[in-house]
Amino acid sequence: MEKKIEDYLGFIKSRKSVRDFIFEKIEKEKINEILECGRWAPSGLNNQPWKVNVVNHPTIKRMVAENTKYSAIVEGAYYNLVIFLDKKKGYNRVKDIQSIGAFIENILLGAHALNLGAVWIGEILNKKEKMNEIFKLKEEDYELMGVVAIGVEEKTKKNSGTDERKRETVENFTEWY
Amino acid sequence: MEKKIEDYLGFIKSRKSVRDFIFEKIEKEKINEILECGRWAPSGLNNQPWKVNVVNHPTIKRMVAENTKYSAIVEGAYYNLVIFLDKKKGYNRVKDIQSIGAFIENILLGAHALNLGAVWIGEILNKKEKMNEIFKLKEEDYELMGVVAIGVEEKTKKNSGTDERKRETVENFTEWY
Repeated sequence: MEKKIEDYLGFIKSRKSVRDFIFEKIEKEKINEILECGRWAPSGLNNQPWKVNVVNHPTIKRMVAENTKYSAIVEGAYYNLVIFLDKKKGYNRVKDIQSIGAFIENILLGAHALNLGAVWIGEILNKKEKMNEIFKLKEEDYELMGVVAIGVEEKTKKNSGTDERKRETVENFTEWY
Repeated sequence: MEKKIEDYLGFIKSRKSVRDFIFEKIEKEKINEILECGRWAPSGLNNQPWKVNVVNHPTIKRMVAENTKYSAIVEGAYYNLVIFLDKKKGYNRVKDIQSIGAFIENILLGAHALNLGAVWIGEILNKKEKMNEIFKLKEEDYELMGVVAIGVEEKTKKNSGTDERKRETVENFTEWY
């Protein structure tokens, strides 16, 4: 296989969840680069139904962290991207939510490209109303879709994300016709 | 910026929808490589709630094509990946559907890595029950999530996908806290 192809495939396949971060400043410009990756995600009718609140301020970060059992991850991350579905832009709930998934995956891959650690926190959806309160967003307009915590990976922790590096084989979820 | 980083970011951002294909055989092995990218998508509790039926046979392809107004795209593609939510593996509808979105994005990026053209067809969800019938899948177990048509891009068609190469700027969907 051509080297460049192999390189890109390896890049996609090597993304993993990183939950342990060291305290090291990340330039705002890098978050912009990551959001540029999200920006080019596909969506039905190209409706781009996403909104992102980038949290760096310690007080807001604490308010977000208080609403998940993964508060240590949120607190440890240099930035947390709080991602909402912009319902005003939505047209089909299944497709809108799928496109948010594609958007988040592009963000995770963007962080991976920049050699930053990141993890997608979905458990916080249990407290989605609280996120609307914190950011003063009307529930009829915005719905929490997840938080992506981003930081510089603490590489000495051997277990960082390795538990998730398990997947069913392709043949286990694929049939050929 | 480091060259490799720039290269990966450019790779993610340059993926586009391709709807016009030439008739050229694609090795099954390439589809396996693409599915390997999907395989490593993230999902809540790592539940991997996806199932893929890869369609190459002309009769089955026609049956799929008959259920979308984008039949010409389906017919023109060498392979169509018919993607289902495996409800037996599901645990939270929003998170399951998001992970299908991440799975599909990895598939689109995998095709992009292999220099193949691909487009995500969501409109076929209007006929999702028909897809269950074609593949003899129970509706309580599987739900159609989309079709990804894959082929070798017809590069002479200038309009291929370019209409979608428009997005809001990052600052239009982002706030900083």
